[in-house]
Amino acid sequence: MATLKDYTYTHFLVTSPAEFVVHVEINRPKKLNAFSEPVWREFGALFNRLSHDADVRAVVLSGAGDRAFSAGLDVQSAAEGTLGSTMGGDVDPAWFATTMRRHIVEFQAAIDAVEKCEKPVICVLHGISIGIAIDISCCADVRICARNTRFSVKEVDIGLAADLGTLSRLPKLVGSTSWVKEVCLSARDFSGEEALAVGFVSQVHENKAAALEAGLKLAGFISSKSPVAVQGTKELLNHARDHSVAENLRYTTVWNSAMLQSSDFKTALMSGLSKSKPRFEKL
Amino acid sequence: MATLKDYTYTHFLVTSPAEFVVHVEINRPKKLNAFSEPVWREFGALFNRLSHDADVRAVVLSGAGDRAFSAGLDVQSAAEGTLGSTMGGDVDPAWFATTMRRHIVEFQAAIDAVEKCEKPVICVLHGISIGIAIDISCCADVRICARNTRFSVKEVDIGLAADLGTLSRLPKLVGSTSWVKEVCLSARDFSGEEALAVGFVSQVHENKAAALEAGLKLAGFISSKSPVAVQGTKELLNHARDHSVAENLRYTTVWNSAMLQSSDFKTALMSGLSKSKPRFEKL
Amino acid sequence: MATLKDYTYTHFLVTSPAEFVVHVEINRPKKLNAFSEPVWREFGALFNRLSHDADVRAVVLSGAGDRAFSAGLDVQSAAEGTLGSTMGGDVDPAWFATTMRRHIVEFQAAIDAVEKCEKPVICVLHGISIGIAIDISCCADVRICARNTRFSVKEVDIGLAADLGTLSRLPKLVGSTSWVKEVCLSARDFSGEEALAVGFVSQVHENKAAALEAGLKLAGFISSKSPVAVQGTKELLNHARDHSVAENLRYTTVWNSAMLQSSDFKTALMSGLSKSKPRFEKL
Amino acid sequence: MATLKDYTYTHFLVTSPAEFVVHVEINRPKKLNAFSEPVWREFGALFNRLSHDADVRAVVLSGAGDRAFSAGLDVQSAAEGTLGSTMGGDVDPAWFATTMRRHIVEFQAAIDAVEKCEKPVICVLHGISIGIAIDISCCADVRICARNTRFSVKEVDIGLAADLGTLSRLPKLVGSTSWVKEVCLSARDFSGEEALAVGFVSQVHENKAAALEAGLKLAGFISSKSPVAVQGTKELLNHARDHSVAENLRYTTVWNSAMLQSSDFKTALMSGLSKSKPRFEKL
Amino acid sequence: MATLKDYTYTHFLVTSPAEFVVHVEINRPKKLNAFSEPVWREFGALFNRLSHDADVRAVVLSGAGDRAFSAGLDVQSAAEGTLGSTMGGDVDPAWFATTMRRHIVEFQAAIDAVEKCEKPVICVLHGISIGIAIDISCCADVRICARNTRFSVKEVDIGLAADLGTLSRLPKLVGSTSWVKEVCLSARDFSGEEALAVGFVSQVHENKAAALEAGLKLAGFISSKSPVAVQGTKELLNHARDHSVAENLRYTTVWNSAMLQSSDFKTALMSGLSKSKPRFEKL
Amino acid sequence: MATLKDYTYTHFLVTSPAEFVVHVEINRPKKLNAFSEPVWREFGALFNRLSHDADVRAVVLSGAGDRAFSAGLDVQSAAEGTLGSTMGGDVDPAWFATTMRRHIVEFQAAIDAVEKCEKPVICVLHGISIGIAIDISCCADVRICARNTRFSVKEVDIGLAADLGTLSRLPKLVGSTSWVKEVCLSARDFSGEEALAVGFVSQVHENKAAALEAGLKLAGFISSKSPVAVQGTKELLNHARDHSVAENLRYTTVWNSAMLQSSDFKTALMSGLSKSKPRFEKL
Repeated sequence: MATLKDYTYTHFLVTSPAEFVVHVEINRPKKLNAFSEPVWREFGALFNRLSHDADVRAVVLSGAGDRAFSAGLDVQSAAEGTLGSTMGGDVDPAWFATTMRRHIVEFQAAIDAVEKCEKPVICVLHGISIGIAIDISCCADVRICARNTRFSVKEVDIGLAADLGTLSRLPKLVGSTSWVKEVCLSARDFSGEEALAVGFVSQVHENKAAALEAGLKLAGFISSKSPVAVQGTKELLNHARDHSVAENLRYTTVWNSAMLQSSDFKTALMSGLSKSKPRFEKL
Repeated sequence: MATLKDYTYTHFLVTSPAEFVVHVEINRPKKLNAFSEPVWREFGALFNRLSHDADVRAVVLSGAGDRAFSAGLDVQSAAEGTLGSTMGGDVDPAWFATTMRRHIVEFQAAIDAVEKCEKPVICVLHGISIGIAIDISCCADVRICARNTRFSVKEVDIGLAADLGTLSRLPKLVGSTSWVKEVCLSARDFSGEEALAVGFVSQVHENKAAALEAGLKLAGFISSKSPVAVQGTKELLNHARDHSVAENLRYTTVWNSAMLQSSDFKTALMSGLSKSKPRFEKL
Repeated sequence: MATLKDYTYTHFLVTSPAEFVVHVEINRPKKLNAFSEPVWREFGALFNRLSHDADVRAVVLSGAGDRAFSAGLDVQSAAEGTLGSTMGGDVDPAWFATTMRRHIVEFQAAIDAVEKCEKPVICVLHGISIGIAIDISCCADVRICARNTRFSVKEVDIGLAADLGTLSRLPKLVGSTSWVKEVCLSARDFSGEEALAVGFVSQVHENKAAALEAGLKLAGFISSKSPVAVQGTKELLNHARDHSVAENLRYTTVWNSAMLQSSDFKTALMSGLSKSKPRFEKL
Repeated sequence: MATLKDYTYTHFLVTSPAEFVVHVEINRPKKLNAFSEPVWREFGALFNRLSHDADVRAVVLSGAGDRAFSAGLDVQSAAEGTLGSTMGGDVDPAWFATTMRRHIVEFQAAIDAVEKCEKPVICVLHGISIGIAIDISCCADVRICARNTRFSVKEVDIGLAADLGTLSRLPKLVGSTSWVKEVCLSARDFSGEEALAVGFVSQVHENKAAALEAGLKLAGFISSKSPVAVQGTKELLNHARDHSVAENLRYTTVWNSAMLQSSDFKTALMSGLSKSKPRFEKL
Repeated sequence: MATLKDYTYTHFLVTSPAEFVVHVEINRPKKLNAFSEPVWREFGALFNRLSHDADVRAVVLSGAGDRAFSAGLDVQSAAEGTLGSTMGGDVDPAWFATTMRRHIVEFQAAIDAVEKCEKPVICVLHGISIGIAIDISCCADVRICARNTRFSVKEVDIGLAADLGTLSRLPKLVGSTSWVKEVCLSARDFSGEEALAVGFVSQVHENKAAALEAGLKLAGFISSKSPVAVQGTKELLNHARDHSVAENLRYTTVWNSAMLQSSDFKTALMSGLSKSKPRFEKL
Repeated sequence: MATLKDYTYTHFLVTSPAEFVVHVEINRPKKLNAFSEPVWREFGALFNRLSHDADVRAVVLSGAGDRAFSAGLDVQSAAEGTLGSTMGGDVDPAWFATTMRRHIVEFQAAIDAVEKCEKPVICVLHGISIGIAIDISCCADVRICARNTRFSVKEVDIGLAADLGTLSRLPKLVGSTSWVKEVCLSARDFSGEEALAVGFVSQVHENKAAALEAGLKLAGFISSKSPVAVQGTKELLNHARDHSVAENLRYTTVWNSAMLQSSDFKTALMSGLSKSKPRFEKL
């Protein structure tokens, strides 16, 4: 296992534990992996880069240290940043609203980078996983957690409605709106088992190590498949969430009218017949 | 516990068991809490009022008596009302259709008042809970039931497709469309346990009393939070159901550009740092 | 039980085990019920016909033989058809894309015929159920399976993103997007029990015979109800999936403004009062 | 010509110049027909009533006096109402935003009553027609004006973006977005001739009297047609504006499945063959 | 000019006046080119075929004879068909509604074939052009008319709201909703000049012959362009009408990711540099 | 008139001819202001910056030199860039499609920057204005042109469907779809007068100088208005284009719930009463 070439970041540790698999660790364990503005700006830039890197086929995202995937917003840092500077003193409410609007739009875009990343992202959670931790994991494709994970949609407790994506995505990720409203309106904790029962995660493991191993294994398995097929599947599933079936079928048709010309299709068909292991082009 | 001032209604008992918490009981136990036209008109008016009452932060809705949350439409009464008067005799089909359309629109609006109520509504079900009982509970934010609840999407049994919201909302509330179609196409009963398994309710309790206690406790807990945060969360979650993620994020951004100016935000941040209990303004 | 009059097909066995109930069997057991172009063209035509046949009130779809509901695309046949003829040689990519687009659109329409069929369709799965088997079952209203069913969203393994509806519909049928992405991105198998846990099927039975019996029983039960109510319920639930609640309520209102004039409504009300078994008109 | 029975209003003069035709005049000429809160509340209630009155088949809306159709918001009155009471002093911005939101929603609903009115509304404009005058006329079905009309989307000049519907509807009513943005961003006046050239009005007449005569004539002509056909046409055209062609066709199909059963259809067919004047049922 | 090979139809005359250009004439001049059920079924089949015929690059549609493009529905024939058979006697209203719904859906599909035809369709109108004539011309890409054309959205005069597409499409084709409502609510005639002024047609010519010549000239000009570019432009413009700009841009991107690989692109670039006349592949 | 501080760009000349007004000139007159990749990347960055610059209230965009606003894509440069490098040789079609998709998305985003710019943009066109010139001007708020402007939606002539926004936006900007299809399918030229007649531009002037003067005058006039009102009006009008009226009203309500708290509102009201010239805060 080696650090990826040129993937050197201040707040994230980026390694490649297997061919085509990248492991991103949020690397502020002393701050419980909380997100300040420099952290989320770097986060967005990192995932935008992974999205177009042909050496990457699947990404695992986890948090460094034993205690937390992430404790969410770095409140102290926020108070010194855009939020703080706009709240003090005698500002015009329209100016404040405009400044906040631009700020939230940029913040959302950084989190969205996980969803927009063309390669599948597997989020492995453990320990404290609140606030932004939920926003981020909602953008991932697959969620796996350790038994000890303590989740919370925490924003109500700091006097605001969550605005980085949890309220937009969570109701579409799990199968009980009654449960979604319960945890979002009350900001109460929920456990890994509860997360599995409602479908928020699809796997729970004994501890962080086991969860991480499962995540890396799944990433490796996906990386052995045709990148054309895998990346198309992610794109079409994300499109499906926000469109009618008829719209998605139309989009799918045009998508595949180009992609079925790929050599991957022929390669996969051939290797299926010959029972050999296929070798796909980079994408 | 005292009856709320001026909240005197013919078919509903409205009390305030705790500060900011309102308990609404459908109060026609001899009729199994069935809905005639006067009942649903009063129902809509009541929830429209609760929506804007700054002394209200959470509402619990239940049915009076041991036997039923509600047996749905008061068929006898309906036969004597709009439905009956339009069905008899030799009316023009276009006139009939127009009259029915206007009638259904008003009926739907009365039920929708629960969803449009700006304050969270927790629905506590027990016993017979069929027809309109399902329509209404689908509009609530959280559903809790007693073990003995007997649910049924009953409309097929009286020769019509449900038109007060169950078919619109139920598929978006639970995680199995196969199950939704099974119960809607067959009108078969389902139990509280089954409702929990598919995510229709998020809690099942031993009996009505325990379910009600759990509902009131949750309402009290939510009422201790910032009203700006709670009401914003309800609005944004309801918006999310019917919009793409991108649309919801845009709406959220504008919403919070105003709401982050609230004193609740500062109050919550402060009390978080000082570990004191926050005191929020009415909304 | 007798073969339905004039329902003679090459690849399907169509019988009527009870009044108003039709049983369609995919009848290529030696080919594991795989779909070649003649098969899916006949399949679409068959369901379009069932949709408007007033002697049909519910349809059960299953696969002949012990081994498979369906092994999906008949790859050998496809290689000799449109797909094969367009892939070889030196064709213009735009011509290829246009030809494939038209081909996919027709293929999708044949599968969609199950969803568009005005009568409820209950899909009973067993054994190998991969690729197109998933596409088709996603179009059915209710899914029931045998314990031995081996499901797989198999397309990634042949180098393409599924384009016949699985990616469009599956995320809207079950309650865990994390699970949906796991099985679609990895093409891994999943069992009947797993399908029940996530809500993809609503019943699992010991073996194919028991599953089929349950499917036929449900079909018979639904056929005893008002066809106006049942067919309206299917239409409105399908509409709900792709529309906001407000849109669906508006559509429902107009739908029922015509349908409440039906004699079924009066018949059902009457028989409810008189406790007699209702007899509904054909539709 | 006589005042309609029981149509007595404080701020509006309601008469019936011909069978089935209603003429509504905004009747505050000394205030240039400006809208205070009591005025728009009465306005909404009036049009809601006309919508369901079977003696009404077409409505003409105009302004009393020579000088103005309407000068828009009664600013002085607004300063003493909701707007004024929320602006003064030291209110919480979230409380202010919530109060304003509820206020705007009610104000919009009153203006929307013209669009929602099931009967066609012909708006006849003259003289000063600014601010709310534009919002209201955008809700009407047909716009006719006198040559001397002085239009203006005036809101930018009082420091706000128009929020009662002009920005929502105007771009969809006329054929030049460049022109729409020019007049909305600059608040400049435009004339009746300019309004005709861009398609905002469909007729310009020499003076108010001629415009009114043309409006009443058109209303009379429409009233001689089948109410089922006319009211259906209004509903379907309004639906078309906000939906795709496919959606509108689907809605139309269901609408007409009920309405084609009307006696109007038979009556119109018959009178077409017999060249006689048809007599339609009230709706 | 010769009749196209195998394009022999009962109600239509199909010729090819120039390479890649097809001329379709509605050929029932004695019936004023009115549409009975056999006529519209043949019409739909014809345009579906033209859509995929690689020898066709542009279509001109006109009406045979001097008097009419089309007088719309063949009322006498309709009375003897589905409409007539469902109206008489004592049928269940739900059965009637269901039958009519299926009938309208098929009728709409036949008219839609013009819009769905992948090749541009230029509609040349003259004389009587009412009812279905408007529905059909709204589906064409370009509308050209003779000065003597007498248009009318005639349906209100036979007691129904137009249900074959005029109400869905006309408001999106022209730049004055006030005018659209005027002609749809009143069923009044409008002239070729008026049609040009509001943008319904883009050219008016002295007489039918001149209009037809202009239509054929435009069709010939379009046929000299790259079919990949022309057919893509039609598809993307039709998609744009019913989608947001963001949606259309996304669809366009995927569309062109396949189509930019075409040899047409290279051919057009080359011939642009060499000033030679390009020769494109069939599509 | 002075060059704006720090607004130094390679391909654009940026000046401030009046307070709050910025004039952007495409500055490659020898290349007829054609767009190579460095040009459009700089273009996007420039408008993103103007969007948030509080010293900017309105922008005028024009082309340097006498001959052209812009001749569109710099074809020679494109052949050497992404397009060229992907077209040559033996690349996998899926890799090509993916590369092109990413390229088009970035190119679209650069053009979109004009639409997304929070300040109004007035586009002044003259001379050759083809291809990208149309894409860009469609993103502007107001279009003004010189009489000598030669417009063309040129893409069909180089073998592709326009993919930078013209096909998405043009049908929504003008009032005749027949005309839009005519010019897009044929790539024929159209004049300034024709552009005015269909509503594509809202002003035509004698020559470039007069058109520019009119554009700057309008920009100056808009800059004298409340920035809160002007920027809100742009945002809400752009939102209206892609949403239903109901959606836009809901968004507007939330937007104004924040913006009505602005001091601009009070300032404008006061200056209206006192007849003085208002002075607004920067935004």
